[in-house]
Amino acid sequence: MPNRLVVVGGGAAGMSAASAARRVDPGLEIVVLESSGYAAYGLCGIPYYLAGLVERAEDLVAYPATYFREHRRLDLRLRATAVELDPDRRTVQYTQDGRTHRLGYSALIVTTGGVPTVFPLPGVPADRVFTIRTLEDAISLRSLLDAGRVGRALIVGAGYIGLEMAESFAARGCAVTVVEMLDRVLANFDAPVAELVEKHVREHVDLRLGTDVKKALAEPDLAPDIVVLSAGVRPAATIAATAGAETGPGGALLVDDRMRTSLPDVWAAGDCVAAYHRVLDAPAFVPLGPAANKAGRVAGTVAAGGDASFAGIVGTAVIKVFELEVARTGLTLAEAQAAGLDARATDVVSRSRAKYYPGVEPVHVRLVHEAHGRLLGAQLVAREGAAKRVDVVAAALYSGMGVADLHSFDLSYAPPYSPVYDPLTVAAQAAIANLEVAR
Amino acid sequence: MPNRLVVVGGGAAGMSAASAARRVDPGLEIVVLESSGYAAYGLCGIPYYLAGLVERAEDLVAYPATYFREHRRLDLRLRATAVELDPDRRTVQYTQDGRTHRLGYSALIVTTGGVPTVFPLPGVPADRVFTIRTLEDAISLRSLLDAGRVGRALIVGAGYIGLEMAESFAARGCAVTVVEMLDRVLANFDAPVAELVEKHVREHVDLRLGTDVKKALAEPDLAPDIVVLSAGVRPAATIAATAGAETGPGGALLVDDRMRTSLPDVWAAGDCVAAYHRVLDAPAFVPLGPAANKAGRVAGTVAAGGDASFAGIVGTAVIKVFELEVARTGLTLAEAQAAGLDARATDVVSRSRAKYYPGVEPVHVRLVHEAHGRLLGAQLVAREGAAKRVDVVAAALYSGMGVADLHSFDLSYAPPYSPVYDPLTVAAQAAIANLEVAR
Repeated sequence: MPNRLVVVGGGAAGMSAASAARRVDPGLEIVVLESSGYAAYGLCGIPYYLAGLVERAEDLVAYPATYFREHRRLDLRLRATAVELDPDRRTVQYTQDGRTHRLGYSALIVTTGGVPTVFPLPGVPADRVFTIRTLEDAISLRSLLDAGRVGRALIVGAGYIGLEMAESFAARGCAVTVVEMLDRVLANFDAPVAELVEKHVREHVDLRLGTDVKKALAEPDLAPDIVVLSAGVRPAATIAATAGAETGPGGALLVDDRMRTSLPDVWAAGDCVAAYHRVLDAPAFVPLGPAANKAGRVAGTVAAGGDASFAGIVGTAVIKVFELEVARTGLTLAEAQAAGLDARATDVVSRSRAKYYPGVEPVHVRLVHEAHGRLLGAQLVAREGAAKRVDVVAAALYSGMGVADLHSFDLSYAPPYSPVYDPLTVAAQAAIANLEVAR
Repeated sequence: MPNRLVVVGGGAAGMSAASAARRVDPGLEIVVLESSGYAAYGLCGIPYYLAGLVERAEDLVAYPATYFREHRRLDLRLRATAVELDPDRRTVQYTQDGRTHRLGYSALIVTTGGVPTVFPLPGVPADRVFTIRTLEDAISLRSLLDAGRVGRALIVGAGYIGLEMAESFAARGCAVTVVEMLDRVLANFDAPVAELVEKHVREHVDLRLGTDVKKALAEPDLAPDIVVLSAGVRPAATIAATAGAETGPGGALLVDDRMRTSLPDVWAAGDCVAAYHRVLDAPAFVPLGPAANKAGRVAGTVAAGGDASFAGIVGTAVIKVFELEVARTGLTLAEAQAAGLDARATDVVSRSRAKYYPGVEPVHVRLVHEAHGRLLGAQLVAREGAAKRVDVVAAALYSGMGVADLHSFDLSYAPPYSPVYDPLTVAAQAAIANLEVAR
């Protein structure tokens, strides 16, 4: 058996894993199989590339392929698609340039990412339908935009990516329609918070909620030049799952805190895994960038013989929706109740700066907590002061703190940055008043 | 003995205390003695009022005096200066309109704030020398500015208030000189961090370090129209200390977690007390607004017969210095070493946004931590992304976490707000590499 680490997938998790493995073992043979033509691409940057805020697709890449090959001595194979894994023989089969290859491994890391939900759209040519999952997708779309060939864009789905796409196309002067099957935007926020975002989105684009895309396409006023499918992502776990790896929520791969799958000598990280969720105390499928990078690093370190562990996630995310910062961490009220927790929500509207300081904006804060005070999550919406303020609650969630702890945090104050009582202090104070008092 | 709460001082702490007491006991007689003509004034807003960003001095007041009198039924006495406290007889003596009064109390809360350091300046008329401690000070200065009578301003001291003043006067078109006796700005930051600020300050005003103000005034090129003394603040603890209250660091009043002084039925809060510092595990004199408000609320609640406690501070502060956000929490390396801790510092330069996102700025982070990992503090400097990011470290310090915990926090990411590895994650990673590994 060769002393060879094979990493399946060259995205954020995969390149973090391969780079970490190289640091642990300078002599290890490391092969990375990436199905697209780019490695270490930042999918999160695609909306800004489409909007024209970022000039070149290459700017979204952490390092060019030559850097990984020459400086990190990684055998990075692009347009190489893994198709089958044999955990007994310790081999992986992949195709490249129309040929099939078989590669033996001593350790394997699966970082196959996520796959967007796709479905046929009657009457729309396939070359007009896009998903946003590779840089190639983005480059094709951008070239259409640059050529002025997108007068009208239809976005399917009003989640994170759908709303980011809506903003990107609007920034390019396209007429944008967003259709969403649910009767609301941002399904992973509580409804009252999502409504604030919905109102803002409607100021910028045509938003049609509770609408089936096929029905929408039948309307004569909607003849899109392109359609972007952003109706959700599921884990690309097939290759490992078919080989017998255990899966959990949403079909994502189950891993331990060393990012080991149930298969021998097979690790996994990134959007294809269900990470340990500290608030739920259970694995959860929350495909986001920071965890992919961190967990990839852990997988690579351990697979190469080093020691590391991944502490898990608490479900923190932020999205820019036109002029709004929309942030969450932990559980929504709906998620907490679905998990069987005795949860309640406390909502306040505070301010981003001292009330007298120019440019002050309202900051909406929802805290989700148990009846006796344990913090479960937070959602913030504001034109400023939401994106990073949510991290304070993420810190509190990391160690299971309560609303009284949050209220006691010694938070920074100066009139340009916060009221003397930070919005989180105000929210915690209101949550304390909303507790069931132990008698 | 009357059932009467007397609050000595009507600033942030005093009005928080009086309002909290009213909530606990709707029938209690509550008298507030405030030596200036305004209550509940926000000193922190004065720089922005002077700069012209805030139109009226009244805008800096949380609520007008009539609100406290009518809605909260507080007997608020303005221009009433407490001069003597008799803890045996439970009386406080005060002067108002040239007359002396004596008032009995069943409970007393001392919120006398801080007093700026003043000293004579030979050759400068007394009416040209200002301190920034009351709204009246600010109103006088503003009227000079509005009248165009401040061509050249001399600021004495390059701490928080001195640098804020420098910015305010520069914004009004004055020629500004800042003289500082020490050879550096911001004595409560570590030198390498203060140097970043110093460089920035020099782009805007004439900064003279290691300079005695008297020597500076002797120079012919410096003929200031006004002088602002901002050379430090000490606790205004005399009235309570003279009556026998125990004092601690810097002469500030010592209190327990109920804000009780050592005198019977006498509480204290605000800039005149040494609050419990969670990182030092000892009282510390850190006169800042949020703690004054919170501790005032605790003092008022307890003094009126309710239950509350103050969890203490970790020394979090932020200041805007021209275009820079300058933030700290916990201990500096110098403070940690002075406290006898085995401390070290880890410095990184990260980014405020994804590297490809327009407007990205460098974020300087210094983490201070023990050799084995316990976090002791952080200092951040950036044009954006420092002010509130420091609060994440404040949350970690609250519960004594380490650099590995900070690295494990699930922090928010989107390209407009952060790199995929937040600057704090980057700093924690570097600090982990900088630890003494247990063998």
